[in-house]
Amino acid sequence: MIGIFDSGIGGLTVVKAVFQQLPDYEIVYFGDTARTPYGTKSPATIIDYAIQDTEFLLSKGVKIVVVACNTASSVATEALRDRFTGIPIFEVVTPAVVKVTQVTKNYNVGIIGTRATINSNIYNKKIKDLYADIKVFSNACPLLVPLVEEGWLKRRETKMILKKYLYPLKRKQIDTLVLGCTHYPLLKDIIQAKMGKRVKIVDSSAETAVYIKNYLTEHPEIDVILKRGNNNQFYVSDFTPTFAEIAKKILGRPIHLLLA
Amino acid sequence: MIGIFDSGIGGLTVVKAVFQQLPDYEIVYFGDTARTPYGTKSPATIIDYAIQDTEFLLSKGVKIVVVACNTASSVATEALRDRFTGIPIFEVVTPAVVKVTQVTKNYNVGIIGTRATINSNIYNKKIKDLYADIKVFSNACPLLVPLVEEGWLKRRETKMILKKYLYPLKRKQIDTLVLGCTHYPLLKDIIQAKMGKRVKIVDSSAETAVYIKNYLTEHPEIDVILKRGNNNQFYVSDFTPTFAEIAKKILGRPIHLLLA
Repeated sequence: MIGIFDSGIGGLTVVKAVFQQLPDYEIVYFGDTARTPYGTKSPATIIDYAIQDTEFLLSKGVKIVVVACNTASSVATEALRDRFTGIPIFEVVTPAVVKVTQVTKNYNVGIIGTRATINSNIYNKKIKDLYADIKVFSNACPLLVPLVEEGWLKRRETKMILKKYLYPLKRKQIDTLVLGCTHYPLLKDIIQAKMGKRVKIVDSSAETAVYIKNYLTEHPEIDVILKRGNNNQFYVSDFTPTFAEIAKKILGRPIHLLLA
Repeated sequence: MIGIFDSGIGGLTVVKAVFQQLPDYEIVYFGDTARTPYGTKSPATIIDYAIQDTEFLLSKGVKIVVVACNTASSVATEALRDRFTGIPIFEVVTPAVVKVTQVTKNYNVGIIGTRATINSNIYNKKIKDLYADIKVFSNACPLLVPLVEEGWLKRRETKMILKKYLYPLKRKQIDTLVLGCTHYPLLKDIIQAKMGKRVKIVDSSAETAVYIKNYLTEHPEIDVILKRGNNNQFYVSDFTPTFAEIAKKILGRPIHLLLA
């Protein structure tokens, strides 16, 4: 099975993209809703949590692990790969970075994400590793996760706050903007409208699913051990009605959340 | 020592009030910043966390425990008193409730708090226990904690969101409004302005400090075992620069945060 974990419910945007790219594969999801959010916490704490999340997924028998959370991807990937050497670990930063380098024409790129993701500087480092000439501008947007979790997707206040967050990036005349947080695809239309239609939006959730699909094509030895079926399992570390509502909003249908 | 815990940093508004009312007493604070916030989580999880927080404070030798968090006060007080029978446990709901019954003249009272606090219905129950005739209107305001933690205390967006949250209460012509969350005193001026000056604002943090002071006067046997001094200790379960900034904003001076 494909194991996918996130700090909470937002990682279901990755699940949705995986369902689109790899519809036959069975997944196990874990959302750490008891300790959500990760994006405001310290690297040491995020690494601890990511290790525990991975151990939980492995205990369910998954054969590959996808870190659906941008914050954990930015801060904890190295620690996870050091610790869990036998298992392919995917994260959501690299696929978005690769896409960025294919898409940008004016070499001015913007990144939005949580404070922990932006402070990690990981997008900047990874983009510059591929193309040193690309200029990367980033802005932490810590209020977007709570706004999405409240379901305030089209409210005037959300649009005003987005405008404030995006303005510094718009001024830099970026032509590409990475949605560096799993919650942000739910705001994609407003973000596109605020940035203007000439700015290309890169959705790290969607790119990650494409990346995994390509990887499995190139690694049939891994592909063959992944289970097919639709007995998908969705675990959370805490359950509230609000979490169930967000899950439904993301996937477009209700799912059964199991308490881990 | 007086032990005080909260889901994070917001409980320092209670510490500030305790310093004003009981300046000679030594305190130990614990903020569960690694798992903050509590207000969006389930009662079962909040109770687990509150028990662990109390155990931590007891391990530091505190003789009384103050649940500074409205969410934990609303959901976990009974479980804490059942479990820790030898120790006086204070919470922030009852002092505010007592004040409300003294202040209201038209018997229409409003409560704002986190979703968990409002869903617990505890303010409503406790007020009706004292005065069955008082009508209680409440509204969950889940975006206020993130706004305060971002330091957006006077921004236009914060004022708009507050207006939206307060409007249903204003329509009910309440004459008293309880700030049922430790973060809200930092928004008191805007809340007062939105509600109009005839509405009396009850700050549960301030009322709790007065309540403890009165209790100690009436219970000299407890008062005598509490330590005097100013060797106060502030523990957090996770440290980030943002947490330190909020602490400074609340207390008006920087404090040394120890990692628990």
